[in-house]
Amino acid sequence: MTESKSVSQIASSAKAASLVLAGLSTETKNKALLEMASALESNTEAILEANRADVAQAEKDNLAKPLLARLALSESKVAGMAKGIRSVAALPDPVGQKLLGMEMDKDLTLYQVSCPIGVIGAIFESRPDAVPQISSLCLKSGNAVVLKGGMEAQNSNKLIVSLLVQGIEKVSGVPAASVQMIETRSQVSELLDEEENIQLIVPRGSNEFVRYIQENTKIPVLGHSEGICHGYIDQNADSEMAVKIALDSKLQYPAACNAMETLLIHEAVAPKVLPGLFEKFNKEKVELVGCVKTQSLVPLILKADDSDWDTEYTDLKLSIKIVSSFEEAVAHINKHGSGHTDVIVTEDNSTGERFQNEVDSASVMVNASTRFADGFRFGLGAEIGISTNKTHARGPVGLEGLVIYKYKVTGKGQTVSEYSGDGGREFTHRLID
Amino acid sequence: MTESKSVSQIASSAKAASLVLAGLSTETKNKALLEMASALESNTEAILEANRADVAQAEKDNLAKPLLARLALSESKVAGMAKGIRSVAALPDPVGQKLLGMEMDKDLTLYQVSCPIGVIGAIFESRPDAVPQISSLCLKSGNAVVLKGGMEAQNSNKLIVSLLVQGIEKVSGVPAASVQMIETRSQVSELLDEEENIQLIVPRGSNEFVRYIQENTKIPVLGHSEGICHGYIDQNADSEMAVKIALDSKLQYPAACNAMETLLIHEAVAPKVLPGLFEKFNKEKVELVGCVKTQSLVPLILKADDSDWDTEYTDLKLSIKIVSSFEEAVAHINKHGSGHTDVIVTEDNSTGERFQNEVDSASVMVNASTRFADGFRFGLGAEIGISTNKTHARGPVGLEGLVIYKYKVTGKGQTVSEYSGDGGREFTHRLID
Repeated sequence: MTESKSVSQIASSAKAASLVLAGLSTETKNKALLEMASALESNTEAILEANRADVAQAEKDNLAKPLLARLALSESKVAGMAKGIRSVAALPDPVGQKLLGMEMDKDLTLYQVSCPIGVIGAIFESRPDAVPQISSLCLKSGNAVVLKGGMEAQNSNKLIVSLLVQGIEKVSGVPAASVQMIETRSQVSELLDEEENIQLIVPRGSNEFVRYIQENTKIPVLGHSEGICHGYIDQNADSEMAVKIALDSKLQYPAACNAMETLLIHEAVAPKVLPGLFEKFNKEKVELVGCVKTQSLVPLILKADDSDWDTEYTDLKLSIKIVSSFEEAVAHINKHGSGHTDVIVTEDNSTGERFQNEVDSASVMVNASTRFADGFRFGLGAEIGISTNKTHARGPVGLEGLVIYKYKVTGKGQTVSEYSGDGGREFTHRLID
Repeated sequence: MTESKSVSQIASSAKAASLVLAGLSTETKNKALLEMASALESNTEAILEANRADVAQAEKDNLAKPLLARLALSESKVAGMAKGIRSVAALPDPVGQKLLGMEMDKDLTLYQVSCPIGVIGAIFESRPDAVPQISSLCLKSGNAVVLKGGMEAQNSNKLIVSLLVQGIEKVSGVPAASVQMIETRSQVSELLDEEENIQLIVPRGSNEFVRYIQENTKIPVLGHSEGICHGYIDQNADSEMAVKIALDSKLQYPAACNAMETLLIHEAVAPKVLPGLFEKFNKEKVELVGCVKTQSLVPLILKADDSDWDTEYTDLKLSIKIVSSFEEAVAHINKHGSGHTDVIVTEDNSTGERFQNEVDSASVMVNASTRFADGFRFGLGAEIGISTNKTHARGPVGLEGLVIYKYKVTGKGQTVSEYSGDGGREFTHRLID
């Protein structure tokens, strides 16, 4: 379908499609989404067949078990894809929202209105379910998308994209080029150069993968590489709660970006909390490394290297550091963290608030597991990813991260000359609906 | 003051200052702003003296007249600087605004709260008045700033920065490193590499200058290089209004980024409108170049080159093209424009709305001069610049472009395990204040 096109042709046709998408009604976009869902559902068997070819090849290539599990589709996973697309159709349209209304003067009005960004480049590893998820979020927000999935899922992804396009083409006015795919690594590096046509890159994958993308494009990148998340057990913590939150933050899904990698413990409570924690983590086969003070309390804990404080294990490993003050904990987090998600356990509300104000991270928790940092759990609807950026969108990002705004001014022939110099007209600048 | 520090020391002390600034109350920040204003005012004579040295050197170097005029300060310009800082103090604090409140479950709440971005790198050409303006906007929004002004204004800028810092230091708790300055070009290229410490670069200056910045940093850049703004006179335009808006858009300040560079005219009205326009622009000494159709109507107009459609003249020159349809006009603008500001003149409201929807620019006007695209005229308060970005902030950008947000979650010890699997707790996800 897109094989014969060069990357620059793909990108410029995506740009052209995006200009059409920006003007579509909510109804038309939702119709296309429902057709996309049906196209997948009614071709479940073909999708599974394409996927079996991918899985067979991956087994031959000795792909790791967890990756194989993510790659393999089933009837219920395909049904889940369709359900996911329908749930995106059900979300409110993020486009066309009036963000600001201003009367500049009589008969001269200004509206700030949300609108799509343009073309999104979405680059991700394996997991064919990402294809319908990202495509539906982009289409709902009026953006065209160019997808690049993992090589392992090539057959599955190609078929899924072509089915999504079949669905799209059933709805008049929605351009087929709204969803396109590229397939090779060399195409990715060409895509990263398409700054005229592509306005945002959304990478999902390993730290190295995301960092590679960030370092090789002038296009804004939405996402995160590392997730070095911290827990801090304050001197006024409830010990039982502290243990519970530490265990959940580390163990509920250790490979997740919002899993805890370093636990800081105030020295006043460390003697009370640490031995129990050691026992529980030990039982769960979590490898612990600690600072000298940690070792002095629990000699069985291995010594942490300096590099441990900057390492995202994404595994059953945790570094522990005993701190002498709240300030030391916050300074450690702001220095070694990745601005993703951090938690304090404390019974003192004002300490909790200080933590939320002073820790410079996207999600800052008081007495709740770091694992809550997620678009669905936050109640934001579907999630395109989690961002540690300090501009545009931060933390779990839903549809609102895929739109920007424009200013619309409507007058009756006014010129700026009339408003200039002595005796010039004055603006009224009155907020309006 | 900052001379003995390396750029990396400046950037990391700015980062440290930003973490303190983020926690300051509105009252403290406003106090610092008022002290900054007073420090300038009470040292007017010293500022003028430093400025005289800059001006003398610039005259020796044969700096162009308009640049000399921008460089030279006066008592009233210094008073204007102080007034500008006080008006920023009077603006609402963009930090600490609750953007979203969500009950995730009983005793588990989420707030999305606006917060500073961190450290802003502001790089601009000449104009010493930019120093207090940018510094006050950054401080009000809780960001530290590292400034780099034009070489010509070196003495003035250095003194102004040191006075601003003197003001800041009078207010306990506000770090002196909140406002810092670098002085040489080689320091700029070092600054552009400080992506760990600097979160946003705001460049102001010529197209080439901004493009250089954009192409030489991994840090997000807020601004615009080109401002290729269009007027389009629709077939249903009021001819008199069309002429009035065209003249104002081109002539009210031809060097501005929101001045019109290309005028598109529907062929149905061109014979009626063009001769009068030619006469008026000719009288104002505007050089006109046009397409073949334009020349066939007014042979005195020179032929436009292909490159004219992509040129920002920022001068008394205008390119004119006759189009056969609304669609051709929109396509021309989306292809050749820079996404800055464009205007349609039409008596047909639905055509005006279509234009505002289909033209992919930051500011889209109906029957109002392009020159209205400005933070002050829009009623947005002070302006840090005009952005043609498609992410973060677009169009005239005020304080709201200098903040991002964080998510604050507060619980009573909840874990994600409790909400997982069959029989797990359900989220309530109810919007709250």
